[in-house]
Amino acid sequence: MDSRQAPPSFDDVRAALQRISRHVHRTPVVTCATLDALVGTPLFFKCENLQKVGAFKYRGASNAIWKLSDDQLARGVATHSSGNHAQALALAARQRGAKAWIVMPSTSLAGKVAAVEGYGGQIVFCENTLEARDSELKRIVDETGAEEVHPYDDDRVIAGQGTVALELLEDVDELDALITPVGGGGLLSGSALTVRALRPQMEIYGAEPELADDAFESLKTGKRQAPRPPVTVADGLRTALGVLPFEILKRDVDDILLVSEEEIVAAMHLIWERAKLVVEPSAAVPLAALLRYSDSFRGKRVGVVLSGGNVELPRG
Amino acid sequence: MDSRQAPPSFDDVRAALQRISRHVHRTPVVTCATLDALVGTPLFFKCENLQKVGAFKYRGASNAIWKLSDDQLARGVATHSSGNHAQALALAARQRGAKAWIVMPSTSLAGKVAAVEGYGGQIVFCENTLEARDSELKRIVDETGAEEVHPYDDDRVIAGQGTVALELLEDVDELDALITPVGGGGLLSGSALTVRALRPQMEIYGAEPELADDAFESLKTGKRQAPRPPVTVADGLRTALGVLPFEILKRDVDDILLVSEEEIVAAMHLIWERAKLVVEPSAAVPLAALLRYSDSFRGKRVGVVLSGGNVELPRG
Repeated sequence: MDSRQAPPSFDDVRAALQRISRHVHRTPVVTCATLDALVGTPLFFKCENLQKVGAFKYRGASNAIWKLSDDQLARGVATHSSGNHAQALALAARQRGAKAWIVMPSTSLAGKVAAVEGYGGQIVFCENTLEARDSELKRIVDETGAEEVHPYDDDRVIAGQGTVALELLEDVDELDALITPVGGGGLLSGSALTVRALRPQMEIYGAEPELADDAFESLKTGKRQAPRPPVTVADGLRTALGVLPFEILKRDVDDILLVSEEEIVAAMHLIWERAKLVVEPSAAVPLAALLRYSDSFRGKRVGVVLSGGNVELPRG
Repeated sequence: MDSRQAPPSFDDVRAALQRISRHVHRTPVVTCATLDALVGTPLFFKCENLQKVGAFKYRGASNAIWKLSDDQLARGVATHSSGNHAQALALAARQRGAKAWIVMPSTSLAGKVAAVEGYGGQIVFCENTLEARDSELKRIVDETGAEEVHPYDDDRVIAGQGTVALELLEDVDELDALITPVGGGGLLSGSALTVRALRPQMEIYGAEPELADDAFESLKTGKRQAPRPPVTVADGLRTALGVLPFEILKRDVDDILLVSEEEIVAAMHLIWERAKLVVEPSAAVPLAALLRYSDSFRGKRVGVVLSGGNVELPRG
């Protein structure tokens, strides 16, 4: 069985942290009395918006890159992504002197394209369909021998994302619950591996927009559901739930909590204004869920992953 | 000589940290590769925007509060401020169960008033003149016996603000320079005490808006200059330079660097967008100076105090 086809274990998360700790920021954990008061319980925010490239995605990408053999390294890596994973893989590859081909739809925002180019990524444009994207990526892999690094359906990536929770549990004692956003499921599944191994009695939740509730429905039905139309403001969570993440979520996650678009935007503004941190809409989904379901969390010490900060800020 | 009339020493800063460390956040130090590249040197941002009440002012206020005798405590504290010191003193007083009278001009923004009330401060409005403010404060002190805690012309406050630099020097090795905003001078003078005691060869600079250049002119002329008309966007720096801070600045600070309004706003947006931190305009003045005078800093490891994050964010 190809290693890309099996979920990683917590041992892989631990090995990932050892592998990448010199290359990623150990991000701070921040507390905010105002947000504690609003939810009615102590919250511990793990600031992956302060991670390199502004998102936790740099961890998974770095773990994949630093696991490559010299042979693989010489051939480079490839992925399709128009989001944070694209920037993360480009920068991680450059740090180790490898090429990174990034397949992006030609409809991508100019700012995203410029960011990937800025990190040294080789951009390959394709039409904005799943088929065009996949066939273009396959063509590159066939021609160059580059190693594909999927944004979340990849054991190396999942293990890398699990280091967020590992650092958090090392830095904060006695957590009762952890909540992360869920899109493709790499962050949530990696976090779940860590929580179940280190603190099995702890609760772990995913937070998801109602308009992108495929993880919620997948867990409810026991069958992986198709992604929703990509309309939620939480643009990082518009993606399909991954096969490997789903295997882990089914086993290790307590529940998925849904929130409305209005709740996401309100939570994002709260984090900007009260916690003084710039976060993107996806990163505010867990706080939105904590505010909506605050009764279930009262009295618990809750870790909250602020997954990223790549948002176009309005100019005042 | 009244202790309020003499500048503190580094011993007071060290004692302050011991006194307040259980009550204030030990704020994280953040790095940002993009900003390093723009200035051309490694920068270490001390995140006082993540401090309680969103500003370093909580340190000085806490040091003053936790130094009070039981007698003083029973009578409470008083100050005039419509800015971060007002919130800081109100919250610090509440933490120790003391009353805090805050004299604010009746023209103060509703949000600032609400914040002080939210922290339990007793607001006393006065007309928006220096005379009305001083006489109202004197009246309260005379009537209640409350202890005045000036926003910066107070040895306890200066010593408290000096703990920002003390933590930074404990957490980051081999700094070559430190730069902070300068308004009343509490933060800069406290930082200077720390730097001169712990790392005398290190450079220390204040950064100031051209439109509020009284510290610059005071150091140049050797005579404390009157404050400028309060027009700079860096609203935290519109105040007069303090008597005690000036004594320290004359002795211990290398230079004051001036920046334009446009440079302040551009630097603030850079910190929001690239470092993912919400900072107020005053907190962006040091980065503005580093960008303007980057030639003088190339190759030096520079500490930068992000002094606060209390800014009205535009709604996108």
